[in-house]
Parts: sequence; structure tokens; C-alpha cells
Amino acid sequence: MTILVTGAAGFIGSNLSRKFISDGIRVVGIDNLCRGSLSNIADLVESPLFSFQEINLCDLEAYAAAVLEAQMEESIDEVWHMAANSDIPAGINDANIDLHDTFMTTFNTLEVMKKFDIKFIAFASSSAVYGDLGEQVLTENIGPLFPISNYGAMKLASEALISASIESFIEGAYIFRFPNVIGVPATHGVILDFIRKLKHSRKSLEVLGDGTQQKSYLHVEELLDAMQFIRNHANDGCNYFNIGPNDIGITVSSIAEKVLEVVAPGASIFYGAGNKGWVGDVPKFSYSIEKLKNLGWVPKLSSSQAISKAVVEIYKQEGSF
Amino acid sequence: MTILVTGAAGFIGSNLSRKFISDGIRVVGIDNLCRGSLSNIADLVESPLFSFQEINLCDLEAYAAAVLEAQMEESIDEVWHMAANSDIPAGINDANIDLHDTFMTTFNTLEVMKKFDIKFIAFASSSAVYGDLGEQVLTENIGPLFPISNYGAMKLASEALISASIESFIEGAYIFRFPNVIGVPATHGVILDFIRKLKHSRKSLEVLGDGTQQKSYLHVEELLDAMQFIRNHANDGCNYFNIGPNDIGITVSSIAEKVLEVVAPGASIFYGAGNKGWVGDVPKFSYSIEKLKNLGWVPKLSSSQAISKAVVEIYKQEGSF
Repeated sequence: MTILVTGAAGFIGSNLSRKFISDGIRVVGIDNLCRGSLSNIADLVESPLFSFQEINLCDLEAYAAAVLEAQMEESIDEVWHMAANSDIPAGINDANIDLHDTFMTTFNTLEVMKKFDIKFIAFASSSAVYGDLGEQVLTENIGPLFPISNYGAMKLASEALISASIESFIEGAYIFRFPNVIGVPATHGVILDFIRKLKHSRKSLEVLGDGTQQKSYLHVEELLDAMQFIRNHANDGCNYFNIGPNDIGITVSSIAEKVLEVVAPGASIFYGAGNKGWVGDVPKFSYSIEKLKNLGWVPKLSSSQAISKAVVEIYKQEGSF
Repeated sequence: MTILVTGAAGFIGSNLSRKFISDGIRVVGIDNLCRGSLSNIADLVESPLFSFQEINLCDLEAYAAAVLEAQMEESIDEVWHMAANSDIPAGINDANIDLHDTFMTTFNTLEVMKKFDIKFIAFASSSAVYGDLGEQVLTENIGPLFPISNYGAMKLASEALISASIESFIEGAYIFRFPNVIGVPATHGVILDFIRKLKHSRKSLEVLGDGTQQKSYLHVEELLDAMQFIRNHANDGCNYFNIGPNDIGITVSSIAEKVLEVVAPGASIFYGAGNKGWVGDVPKFSYSIEKLKNLGWVPKLSSSQAISKAVVEIYKQEGSF
């Protein structure tokens, strides 16, 4: 079994590649090392099961050449497409970022799959496809889908292109709508932001927004487990699932307090105004994982427990100053 | 008042431009003349209210230059973005067609609007965003949205990008989800296909599929009326409406019979197999216009009446052989 992992040097891609290799699966990793880093896969490149190419997926010719080379050793069975922009605010300021890194990476992945007759794709989609539906419970079949960030828009565009491809050349698609995922190697996100701010000044922490934003968080280890579970148990042409913790989330103020406990006990927290951290941020949502639970998978950690675990891991990553 | 119409030389764009001009609105028309044609706007170029530029909207630099030039005379108030691929099967065979003509035209339109501070967009979306939801009634808020053609996927991608833009630089968006629209100048579609087949051989008509496909059809005159009604009466940031006739549609076999009546009475009809005409074709759907009716607009013609009217018009266009 050989799997192509895009974004293999990124946060989720590197963890996923490591998991596949530990399961004895050959992994062909591709990353443009724009947000990913070789240090994230330093241990993997030692494995005979792992090969890596630094490619910008927007360069279709280079992408196809890399896949051709990998296919010569052993044909690729599936693509797990994790590559994307991860800086949502940057993508709102410049729409080209998500056009290229979140959408064209998917477009070209499908072109390559068509060319090389690869029939299965697993895709890192996002809760951002739902936009801001207010207090409604976000089940997979809810509508309308009007994302409020270019990131969410280009994730929805990617889903749409994958679903259209199922009609013509793809046999099975696994669309995972991620919540906020935490763990190491952390490259972005609220915990890393807080820890880095505290590294700069240990006495106080300034928080964007009033701290009442509430979000679901899943630890990356559980995310990997859920994705593999879905891949092994769902059998439709188009399999789409929300993945998340089994709760309504945790507020930003609780996260700030958890970070302080570990990193800088006694420091003060200063909140901003409004319940949005930035344009395109969804303040609060209730994310349903009933469909996934019905398939048979339940997370072990709550949002709060996942945050506690990740705070310790990320603090260590940042040097436990 | 000045409106930029993209796809101004196409089927809907040319009719729309003509309508605006008759209302005393200045129209800046852009078209790449790939599927549109100068003959469609031959009467318009005589008007002092109409200016036209042959531009490929995928060429952002040329697009921005054309808008800059138009703005120098009088600033553009709104963009009515009608440009898109209209050949769905071609777009399934080559994903680049809808990537460029259906999606990148929207991406660049938004880039131009941001650059020149144009705050309102009206967009020709499609019932194709709904994919194949079986027997369900297609209301605007239904989900999930999994299109089955690249055309539908790129229309959904365009909607998503527009909705994200509302969060940052657009004040109002009018998203019209079109049904099958008929009338002249016809450039594609089932009536034109049938008439051209009969021109080739008047004795028999070969129909793709078994003829049981059922679809809603709206005459282009009613479409224009509905779009302007929505623009004048809906006041949300993101206004999205299905537009269609007030019925569940008409079967392909009925259309074939109507065409025969006018064009070749007594000819035989031969049907194919299956209820899909081509990959990506949705066999039957029930399209709700309740939201539009609640806003106060009701179509005057049924699908069947619209077909009858269009058959005569298109037969005339094709030379009444």
C-alpha cells in the first residue's frame, strides 16, 4: 500500500505520515515547505517507507513529474490531501493565498489523480465551509453554505470539485471537516499565539476579542484516529463527516487561563472588544459529530482536555522558557 | 447609473445589457467572444449608453485596465457577472474550462471590485450547485451541496468567494440560482440541439437518454424581470434566490414533441437508454421558488409555455428551414 500525502511536512501531514509509516504503509510526501518544515519530518526521512519531494503543488508539471517518479517504484493507491493555507486572516487580506494554496492544490491533485488513474482521495476540509450559521447545530447536511473567509470558500470549492470528480473518474472520496486541531508541531493557532506573547512579556497576556468566542478543539492524535476510522468504515462514493470533540467547545478566556497556569501563573489577562478575533472568524458554533458517532467513532478527550494536553506539548516545543 | 456586465455578448448578458440600456442605464460590456458573439450586440453598439471591450476576464491586468478606462468616464456602481462556461459536458472532460471561464472570471471580478471600490455584485449562479439531491425539493437552504459537474462546482466556488467577500469589501451580493434558461440568441441547450439535428435530417430525431428527464425552464425575458425584481426588493448583505418557473418542469420527450410540431411534423423520435443525457446531468429535480414568491415575484409562463415560445424563436433564429 502506498499513499501520497500532500502537505506532508505540515502540522497534520507530518503526524499523518508518521502514523501511516508506523502502520507499515509506504508514504510519498510532498510539501512546498512554505508553512511546513523539514524539521517536522526529520525522523521520517530515515525510514525506507518514506520518500519526500519539495514541490509546489500549484506547479502541475512538477507535481505530475514527482508522482510519475513515485509511481515507478510502486503505484500510488490513495492521495491524502492535507496541503492548504493555514493562515486565515492572511487569506482574507490577499485572496490569492487561498486561491493557490487551498484551492489550486486540490485542483491539481485531481488532475494528477485523473492522469495517473488514482481512484481514492481523502481530503482535509474544514468547519469553515459552514460560514456563520448563528446558533444552528452544524450537521453535515445543513445549508446554506456561505463561508465568511476565503479559506472557507476555497475549502468548499475543493469539496465541490472532488464531488464532481466522483461522477467521472474518482471511485471514493473521504471529506473530513476538521474543527480546530491542536497538538505539535504547532505552526499557528491560539495556544501558540498566547505562549509566544508570554515569551515576549511574562507579566500580561493581551487577547484579541472579548474572550467569549467558543470553539471545539480536537487533539491531532484523535483526528488521525478518526480519519483512519472513517476511511476504513465508510463506503459511499462521497463520504463526508464532521470530525470534532463530543462537546460544544471551550471559550478563549478558558484557553488563556489554561495557558497561564502552565506558562506564567499569576500573569494578567487583558481582553479586547467584540466577540470576533478577526474578520472571517466565526465567534461561536455548535458542531455536530452525530454522523461520526453513528459510524462508531467517539473521541476520548473533551475540548478542554485536548487544550490542556496541547498547552504542555506546545510549551515544550517552544523551549519551556 | 453605470453597470458593468460580464459576458455581455452572450445569451443572457446581451439580453440583460439591452434591458439596462432601455431603462436608461449606462452599460460597460465585457466579453471574450469565446461563446458570445458580436452579432448578439450589433444593435447595442449603436447606443451611446453602451461601450464594449473584448477582454478575457482571466487576464486580470487587461480586465483592470478596461475597468479603469470605463471608470474615467463615470464610476461603475455595480457588476452583473454573467460570464461563464455554458458547455457543461465539455467542462467535465476538461476541468480547466470551468476553472478558467466559470471560476477565475469570478475571482478576477472580485479582485477588480476590491481594487476599484465597487460595492455591489449580481451573480448568475445555477441550480447545478445543488448536485443530485434525488427527490428532495430544492429550497435555497438545502444541503449538502455536492455538485456533480465541474460547472456546478465552480458556480458553488464562485458563490463561496462572493459570500466571503461580503465580510470584507462587498456591501451587497445578489446570487441568482438559474434554472435552464431559454430564448434567443440561443447558443446551446436542448431546443437548439433538436432543431439543428432536424435541420440535418428532417425525418427523425435522436434523443440522448430515454426522454424521461424532467427539468424546469424559464424564458430569458422572465429571468431578467426576476433578477431586477430581486435587486430592487431584497436588502440583505447576501441575497440568494432560486429563479425558475412555478412548476416541476417538463420532460425531454415533451420538448422533443413540441419541437417536432413546429419544425418537422410527422418526424419520428428515437430515444436512447437511461435517464441521464450525459455525465453530470441531473435527471429530475424539484426546484422551489417559494422564497422568490414570498419576496413578491411570480413568473407568468409555465415551463411548457416557455418552451413553446422559445421553440418558435429559436427556429426563426436558425433560419426557419
